[in-house]
Amino acid sequence: MQKKLGEDTIVAIATPSGVGAISIIRISGPLSLEIADSIFIGKKKLKEASSHTIHYGKIEDSANNQIDDVLISVFRAPNSYTGEDSIEISTHGNPLISKKIIEVIVKNGARIAEPGEFTKRAYLNNRLDLLQAEAVLDIINSRTEASLLGARNQLDGLLSGKVKELRQMLLDAASFIELELDFTEEEIELINNSELKNRISGIIQEIDNLLNTYNFGKLLKDGVNVALVGKPNVGKSSLLNYILKESRAIVSSIPGTTRDVIIEDVSIDGILFRLYDTAGIRKSENEIEKEGILRSQNVVKNADIVLFIDDVFLNGTNEILQEIATLTRYDRIIKVVNKIDLKRNCSKNADVFISAKTGDGIEILFTKMKEKILGNSIYTEKSAIISSMRHYNCLIKSKENLENSLISIEKHYSGEFIAVDIRNAAISLGEIIGDVTSDDVLNNIFSKFCIGK
Amino acid sequence: MQKKLGEDTIVAIATPSGVGAISIIRISGPLSLEIADSIFIGKKKLKEASSHTIHYGKIEDSANNQIDDVLISVFRAPNSYTGEDSIEISTHGNPLISKKIIEVIVKNGARIAEPGEFTKRAYLNNRLDLLQAEAVLDIINSRTEASLLGARNQLDGLLSGKVKELRQMLLDAASFIELELDFTEEEIELINNSELKNRISGIIQEIDNLLNTYNFGKLLKDGVNVALVGKPNVGKSSLLNYILKESRAIVSSIPGTTRDVIIEDVSIDGILFRLYDTAGIRKSENEIEKEGILRSQNVVKNADIVLFIDDVFLNGTNEILQEIATLTRYDRIIKVVNKIDLKRNCSKNADVFISAKTGDGIEILFTKMKEKILGNSIYTEKSAIISSMRHYNCLIKSKENLENSLISIEKHYSGEFIAVDIRNAAISLGEIIGDVTSDDVLNNIFSKFCIGK
Repeated sequence: MQKKLGEDTIVAIATPSGVGAISIIRISGPLSLEIADSIFIGKKKLKEASSHTIHYGKIEDSANNQIDDVLISVFRAPNSYTGEDSIEISTHGNPLISKKIIEVIVKNGARIAEPGEFTKRAYLNNRLDLLQAEAVLDIINSRTEASLLGARNQLDGLLSGKVKELRQMLLDAASFIELELDFTEEEIELINNSELKNRISGIIQEIDNLLNTYNFGKLLKDGVNVALVGKPNVGKSSLLNYILKESRAIVSSIPGTTRDVIIEDVSIDGILFRLYDTAGIRKSENEIEKEGILRSQNVVKNADIVLFIDDVFLNGTNEILQEIATLTRYDRIIKVVNKIDLKRNCSKNADVFISAKTGDGIEILFTKMKEKILGNSIYTEKSAIISSMRHYNCLIKSKENLENSLISIEKHYSGEFIAVDIRNAAISLGEIIGDVTSDDVLNNIFSKFCIGK
Repeated sequence: MQKKLGEDTIVAIATPSGVGAISIIRISGPLSLEIADSIFIGKKKLKEASSHTIHYGKIEDSANNQIDDVLISVFRAPNSYTGEDSIEISTHGNPLISKKIIEVIVKNGARIAEPGEFTKRAYLNNRLDLLQAEAVLDIINSRTEASLLGARNQLDGLLSGKVKELRQMLLDAASFIELELDFTEEEIELINNSELKNRISGIIQEIDNLLNTYNFGKLLKDGVNVALVGKPNVGKSSLLNYILKESRAIVSSIPGTTRDVIIEDVSIDGILFRLYDTAGIRKSENEIEKEGILRSQNVVKNADIVLFIDDVFLNGTNEILQEIATLTRYDRIIKVVNKIDLKRNCSKNADVFISAKTGDGIEILFTKMKEKILGNSIYTEKSAIISSMRHYNCLIKSKENLENSLISIEKHYSGEFIAVDIRNAAISLGEIIGDVTSDDVLNNIFSKFCIGK
C-alpha cells in the first residue's frame, strides 16, 4: 500500500475533556487557514501570518455572534506536527465553547478527526515513522517514569534506528546475492557462503536480543503483577498499607475490586507494581470460599512476582509454599518473613525479613522485587526495547525468514531463493517502522489513540 | 488598598486534568523567560524570541534527562493575558509529564500559582477590570448559551461601561458641588438644587434598572428551578422523560437524588431549566411519606416556576392547586393538562394542553416557561445585566448614599455633606469594577477560580 495524504481538513479538541482554564482546538489540512479566517476576526488575516506565530482575536458563529476571544497559533506546512498547514485555537476552557467552535468550523468545511488522525497524518507525511507514532500513544498513556522513558526513547528513534540498521544490512546482503546471480556464468563469488551465513547469524542474534527485551518491555509498560499470598494474619494487608504509604507515588486504587482480591497500583523507583492482596489459596468445602480461592489461584498464576508472606511465629506454612509452587515458577517467588519487630531471632529460611509495622526491611524487599524484573535484563537507559506485540510478531517473522535462508545456504540452493528469504526478512522489519503497512494495521494502531492526537 | 503587582513568577497547569492529546503549562512573571530558558533546549534562547512566537524544543530535568518535546509560546509584557512576561508550554497530554515539568520549573525559581492568580494579575496590571475578571470565571462555568452570552457581554465590558458612565456622572456632580463651596462667599451657584436632584434621581433610576436585572441575571446564570407537581399518574414522569428527550441539549443528570425528588437539568433555547419531579405535596399520616411531602413542599417553595400537572380525566385536582398556591406566588404556576391524546375535548381551565406521549403542546409549554422568565425583563442581547450578589450589594449601597444625598439637598444641608454622599456612592460603583477593592474581596473572588486561570 502506498502512503496516502489527507486531502480534507480535520478538526478536534486536543485537551482533556472538562472545565479548565484553557481548551485547545486543533485543525489540520489544506484548508486550515482558510477555514480559520472565515470565523476569526483578528488584526490581520491568518492566510498572511507566518508560521509559528500567535494571533489574538474573536471567533464568530455563522450569525456573526461572538463565541469567544481566542489565541490562534499558526503552523505552516511542512513545519507542523502533521506536516500540513494547521492551527491551534486556545479558548476559555468551557466544553460548551469548544463544542460551538468545532460546530462552526465543521460548518465551514472541516470534518471531525478520527482518533489518532493527527498523528496518522504526521506518519503519512513522514514526520514520524510508525514506531515513533506508536510511541506518541505510549507517552500519553505512561503511568510511571520507566514506561515514560521507554516511550520517550522510542519517540526519539532509538528502536527505529536499530531496526533500520538491521534492515539495511539485510538489503545489502540481498543485493550482493542478486548481483552475483547476474555474473553467475562468470563464476564470480562476491560474497562467499560462510561469510553470508555469519552475517545472517549475526543479524539473527541482534533480533534475538531485541526479542529478549519483550517481556521486560511489557512489564515496564503495563506494570508488574505482584500477588501477596499467605496464611491469615501474617500481615498481608499491613504490608500492602505500608507499601502504599511509603511508595513515592501511589498511582491509583482500582475501584470495584472483588470481595476476595484487593488491587493497588504503586510506582516504586519508576516501575509500576500492581499489588494483589489475595484472600487465601487453600482448599475449602465452603462454596463461597471456593470461588474466592479459585480467584486467588488465578492471581498467583498470572503474577510476575509472588510475595509469599510468612511470620516469625507461624508453623506449617510450608504447605502453602508448596501449593504456590504448583501454580507458578519457583523463581518468581519471594519468601518474606514478617513481624521481626516482635521476635528478632528467627531461624526461618527467607529471602527477606521485614516488619510491616516499623518498615524494617521494606527497602530490601523493594530491591528484591526490582531485581526479579531487572535482574536478567540487559536494560540500560539507552537500550532499544520492544514492548508491543506487533513489533514482537514482526521480529519473529523476520527471524523465521532468516532461518529459512540459512537452511537454503546449507542446502546450496540457488541464490534466488536465499535472496527472497532475506528480502522477506527485511520487509518484516520494514513493517515495524511502517515502510509498507496495510490499512488494517494502521487503523488498528491509530484507533487506540484519543481524539485530537 | 493600592494595586500590588506580582513580583514572583508563577506556574500552573492550565488544561483540564486527565489524559489527552495536549496539556498546557502556563508561567507568568518577571522570570518567565529566564526560567524557561534554564530547562528548554531549542534552536534559540527564548530571551531573544519575539512576543507571540512559538518555539519547538525539549525540556530537561535538573539531571539533564529529557522530560518531553514541547512547543513554547512566548508572550512579552505588556502584551500577554496577565500583562507580564509569560509563556505557555504545550506538552504531550499526560499528567505525569505535566507534574515533572512543573516540578522542574518550581525548582528553577517559580512557585505554584494560586487559583485564579493569572486573572488576578491581569486585573492588577489593568488588563481587565474586576467585572471582566469575574466574567472570565462565569465564561468558564457557563453551562448554557444564555449564561455564556451574559458572561461574554460582561467580559466585553458592557456592564463595566454602564457602571463607569454612572460613576463619572456622580464624580462630575460632586466636583461641581465642591467647586461651588470654594466660591461660597461670592454666592455663585454653579448647579442649582433642582437640577442636582434631577441628575441624582436619574442616576438612581439607572441603578434601579440594573438592580431589576438581578433576579433575571441570576436565573440565566444559575438556572431556573421548575417543580413538577400533580396527583399520581397524571404523567409527571412521562413529561419529564419527554422533555429530556426533546430538549436540544441535556446538560446533566444530578446523581444521588433522593427517593422523593428527581432532578434533571435541561437547556431549552439556551436557558438552563432544573426540573424537579416531586412525589406529592398532600398531607399524609405515614411518617416516611410525611418526610417526602415536606421535601416536595420545599421544592415548590424554592421553585421559580411550578408546573401543576393535571390530566383530562381527573376530578378533584383543584385541592392540589390550592395547596400549591399556599406555597408559591400564583404567577409562578403554569397549569398543564396532560393526556390530550386520549380525549380531545376538555373543558378544564389550563394554560397549556399537552400530550407527554405524542409531544403535542410541548413546544407551547416551553414557550410559556420561557415567558415566565423573560416576560417582564427588559432583556435584549446587548443589555447590561447583573447576576452577582456582590454587584447587587454595591449597587444597593450606592443607591442608599444617593438617597441620603437627596435628603440632604431637601434639608438644605451644606454642600460638603451632599458631596460626601455622592462621592461614597461613586466609591461603591468603583468597587464593582475594582477601582478600589479590599484584599478580602479580591481573595474571595479569585479563590473561586480554577488553578491555571
